[in-house]
Amino acid sequence: MKKVNVVVVGATGAVGQEILNILDERSFPINNLKLCATSRSAGTEIEFRGQKYVVEETTPDSFTDMDIALFAGGKASLEFGPAAVERGCVVIDNSSNYRMDPEVPLVVPEVNPEDVTWHKGIIANPNCSTIIMVVALKPIHDAAGIKRVVVSTYQAVSGAGKEGIEELTEQVKAVLDGREYPPKKFAHQIAFNLIPHIDVFQDMDYTKEEWKMVKETRKIMHDNNIQVTATTVRVPVYRSHSESINIETERKLTAARAREILAQAPGVIVQDDVANNVYPMPLFTSHRDEVFVGRIREDNTIDNGLNLWVVGDQIRKGAATNAVQIAELLLKYDCLMEKK
Amino acid sequence: MKKVNVVVVGATGAVGQEILNILDERSFPINNLKLCATSRSAGTEIEFRGQKYVVEETTPDSFTDMDIALFAGGKASLEFGPAAVERGCVVIDNSSNYRMDPEVPLVVPEVNPEDVTWHKGIIANPNCSTIIMVVALKPIHDAAGIKRVVVSTYQAVSGAGKEGIEELTEQVKAVLDGREYPPKKFAHQIAFNLIPHIDVFQDMDYTKEEWKMVKETRKIMHDNNIQVTATTVRVPVYRSHSESINIETERKLTAARAREILAQAPGVIVQDDVANNVYPMPLFTSHRDEVFVGRIREDNTIDNGLNLWVVGDQIRKGAATNAVQIAELLLKYDCLMEKK
Repeated sequence: MKKVNVVVVGATGAVGQEILNILDERSFPINNLKLCATSRSAGTEIEFRGQKYVVEETTPDSFTDMDIALFAGGKASLEFGPAAVERGCVVIDNSSNYRMDPEVPLVVPEVNPEDVTWHKGIIANPNCSTIIMVVALKPIHDAAGIKRVVVSTYQAVSGAGKEGIEELTEQVKAVLDGREYPPKKFAHQIAFNLIPHIDVFQDMDYTKEEWKMVKETRKIMHDNNIQVTATTVRVPVYRSHSESINIETERKLTAARAREILAQAPGVIVQDDVANNVYPMPLFTSHRDEVFVGRIREDNTIDNGLNLWVVGDQIRKGAATNAVQIAELLLKYDCLMEKK
Repeated sequence: MKKVNVVVVGATGAVGQEILNILDERSFPINNLKLCATSRSAGTEIEFRGQKYVVEETTPDSFTDMDIALFAGGKASLEFGPAAVERGCVVIDNSSNYRMDPEVPLVVPEVNPEDVTWHKGIIANPNCSTIIMVVALKPIHDAAGIKRVVVSTYQAVSGAGKEGIEELTEQVKAVLDGREYPPKKFAHQIAFNLIPHIDVFQDMDYTKEEWKMVKETRKIMHDNNIQVTATTVRVPVYRSHSESINIETERKLTAARAREILAQAPGVIVQDDVANNVYPMPLFTSHRDEVFVGRIREDNTIDNGLNLWVVGDQIRKGAATNAVQIAELLLKYDCLMEKK
């Protein structure tokens, strides 16, 4: 297989580190690897496949002779994405900067792999909660046509990066010791609490996270008729986002049939044996690449209703794994860019 | 005001203790107080209004000369409820034993206070998640007619009693220390995890807790046309249940109007100022008697949709406070029983 030159931008963060793990695990065919980050993190040493790399500060020239740039998140892709594209390097961007740009494909490989082929240099990786949801929704949509989704999320603190993880640990210790530990990363105490507020508030008092689940789902599924309403909540769990999803379909799908369809769907593992207390839980789905689906039940309050409980590792499938899968599709469909 | 003789059955448990706190706080007019429990807890000393009481083992004669028996939960009301009624003592029962019995009123004082008047000796206190939900639903139902509710819960460990609280604390410490702490009270580890399973699994793979929210809501609201579908989830929070509620109404209700109606509703506190990060959270609603409602949003995926985030202390309003309020209604409507 052809080997390519890969640059990871934001290599020192939680998602960046996971991208490196996954490139290695999946034996991604790398010729030259470059690790970049902000000046603050430049100089850090990171080992990859037995070799040490020194993290460089990202500059426009970081992308010269590179084929694929994996941007872990944040504002870097706004600043350096166009420079990378100018140099013939395809950008796979985990931030929300370009997701709703009609010129930019928004791709979940299990759902809309072909969309990578029409990229103009940038491909966006969707929001983590959205990725996890659409992997479970796609097979249902294909089988019965989804009209409406009501989703409530239970999102892990690592969605807020390493600082989110540290805040939960230190705050839990403080609470147990009777000490104060004021919130820093989150708006309120997260230890032994729930915060129904992720990202900033926008139109109609929905959060940006909630709107992402509405808008990105339609774009990924190529169906502007799918109605989605979301309530997103931070919970004191380290890793893996969970979602309670109520679905109304055009055509009837029994729970048994939904279970069969989901069991055969790419990237999905069905865990649904309630007689033996088997259902997905974030503690046991972390560090996995699949989306786990359980509590599959018909909802008889409407003609064609289904309830699902869906859990997935939002740092892996919700971010890093999905990005690396997109890179694999670029090779599969042979749609890298010509160097200028 | 007339003073009455009150017996608390299950006085040593979490709900029993809270019933005593609330009888005291609300200055309930008690003449004689008797505290009962199983033989295991008999002999325990409990102080109430500066006086020490020795907990007695419950027997049929515990109810002789008593006016009101507050049963904290479990099987005791099956064993002793009829004996209490025979002796002219009205039973207010926090267990699920009699809730769906057509001869037994199921009462939430903010919703259907008049139902206490037709009791035949037993009045049932609803399920905790249901109480918290219906207090918020009732004013919406009166204003716009509720057709359908999709609810996902986030339930605190104290819903499983003192052992649930201890299990969360000890398991969190163990996880932080890298020690094992196998689950006892819960089916799986609850520390830093979510368990989408509360009470036993029943018809259509819904749990008993989920069916309670469906069936009890209809009975309390006197409306068998209200459609409810529920997914109930245990979360690593000590106290107060939270609920993400999506509502479809007959008539349009704007978010602004819903906010006004809820702000005037009995037993409800609206906390909905997202510009200042104000919304209900379980950490700050515990040890309160009201139900807190926030994140009030129109849901435009249907003609008349609303989303709410509702939080309430399930040991107080979800159990003990509601039971004491029912006792107050018995006095208000003068519907105690004649002694035989």
